[in-house]
Amino acid sequence: MMPTKVSIFEVGARDGLQNEQPVSTTAKMQLIAELADAGLTRIEAGSFVSPKWVPQMADSAQILQQIPRVKGVTYSALTPNLKGFELALNAGADEVAIFGAASQSFSQKNINCSIEESIERFIPLMEKAKQHNIAVRGYVSCVLGCPYEGKIEVAEVARVSEILYKMGCYEISLGDTIGIGTPTDARRMVQAVSEVVPISQLALHFHDTYGQALANILACLDLGISTFDASVAGLGGCPYAKGASGNLATEDLVYMLHGMGIETNIDLSKLAKAGHNISAVLGRPSGSKVANALK
Amino acid sequence: MMPTKVSIFEVGARDGLQNEQPVSTTAKMQLIAELADAGLTRIEAGSFVSPKWVPQMADSAQILQQIPRVKGVTYSALTPNLKGFELALNAGADEVAIFGAASQSFSQKNINCSIEESIERFIPLMEKAKQHNIAVRGYVSCVLGCPYEGKIEVAEVARVSEILYKMGCYEISLGDTIGIGTPTDARRMVQAVSEVVPISQLALHFHDTYGQALANILACLDLGISTFDASVAGLGGCPYAKGASGNLATEDLVYMLHGMGIETNIDLSKLAKAGHNISAVLGRPSGSKVANALK
Repeated sequence: MMPTKVSIFEVGARDGLQNEQPVSTTAKMQLIAELADAGLTRIEAGSFVSPKWVPQMADSAQILQQIPRVKGVTYSALTPNLKGFELALNAGADEVAIFGAASQSFSQKNINCSIEESIERFIPLMEKAKQHNIAVRGYVSCVLGCPYEGKIEVAEVARVSEILYKMGCYEISLGDTIGIGTPTDARRMVQAVSEVVPISQLALHFHDTYGQALANILACLDLGISTFDASVAGLGGCPYAKGASGNLATEDLVYMLHGMGIETNIDLSKLAKAGHNISAVLGRPSGSKVANALK
Repeated sequence: MMPTKVSIFEVGARDGLQNEQPVSTTAKMQLIAELADAGLTRIEAGSFVSPKWVPQMADSAQILQQIPRVKGVTYSALTPNLKGFELALNAGADEVAIFGAASQSFSQKNINCSIEESIERFIPLMEKAKQHNIAVRGYVSCVLGCPYEGKIEVAEVARVSEILYKMGCYEISLGDTIGIGTPTDARRMVQAVSEVVPISQLALHFHDTYGQALANILACLDLGISTFDASVAGLGGCPYAKGASGNLATEDLVYMLHGMGIETNIDLSKLAKAGHNISAVLGRPSGSKVANALK
């Protein structure tokens, strides 16, 4: 059965901008404010990964400290370890996110350790988060394929998702990191994961590198999934597919959902404007087809 | 039930290129040859609309006359009237296409007559086509919305489709001309039309202006539709949505279908190369996300 409303987790200011040329703190804060004004209530606002690796996110603490908070909006941050968590906590993040890969090769190449080691390192973070009553979201990457291994077994995605869920993540966001999946595989994967994590606690984070993200979401909608990650203006590229787009544009997702009579509480016109504004800062057109068509 | 194989009707060399800056006859002939080499067996190769209106297609007769024919490939042409049909016939078109709108306003503004008048004008063409044993395809535009009227009733789409089918069109291609549709509406429209035209004789021609084309196709796949129009490299813009993309890129469709285990007999890598080549002629990147990701 199709959901009557869905929750959108906006990742443009983090997953998007961390893969773009650096923009000013002011521009980011304006983006975040405009996203909240457009009705988004879950906004990933920064990352506490070392600025050595991700210089685009070096001002995340400043942003979380200074951004005027809108009531009912959750401002979250990606935290790679306990130190990152403490910085996020001090900066006032409402919730944080940790991550694990569904591919051993990706984990090794990306963070130089096995999936198991990478998750184990999050245990002290999870304990501290519990003490401070901070909700933790869990990202699982490579759920529909890996740039090194190719196909990923759904059982492995389910295994990693279950570990993160049992560790205390309130929601598991399943990421098609390289955007390679197609509808049948997406559906099969979600079905497998939903056997070990309640489907109400799953989110889909599908990249649009191969133009499949909306179709993949559609294929999973009637399974009971009702949370989707997306990035305004399609912000964020994919390091493995130069020239190709990365994140799914929030505008395109909202347009489809509204067209299907599914509520998001998002003002599409304001959202598209927010996307055009940040795209202008980046000096390029919006990556959202809907935003460009509406312009 | 999902089809196990589908037929793709390639419109890039006509519906695509007629909305791009003019390219040389040589470049078009190379494109058409490369499309056939990639496994496409239904290629729209030109249009016999007056060159006054569509200068990009002025060399259609020359192309149809000179292109080396590949066995098993159908080379078709758009024909607006009897004169166009005769030109297409003389040039050696294997089949032709006629068109009608599902919107009165669109018909009036586009060809300055009512839907009924526009279709009536095709009667002499249909008779002549029958005499020469030339198959005629029928396009219906604005099936999911009109730039002037907005929503279009599915009953009206069904009515126009039925007229064209009963006139003798062997296949009715349902066009979302402005790419505005979303999955639920697409499915509802196809269901309505399939009540008056056998679903095996329907094709979907969805534009990707709002990024919805693949999702819309997916929504209709299990209804029994197994013919889809698409345009290599997403060739072709939409005059009503400047800056936005128009046609669905064939590569993106083929990628989805193959990923779902649905056969097309198309070599995706050759297809993407054909798309890159014509895009280079146009001096811009391919409009196919798949082609760019594979590059």
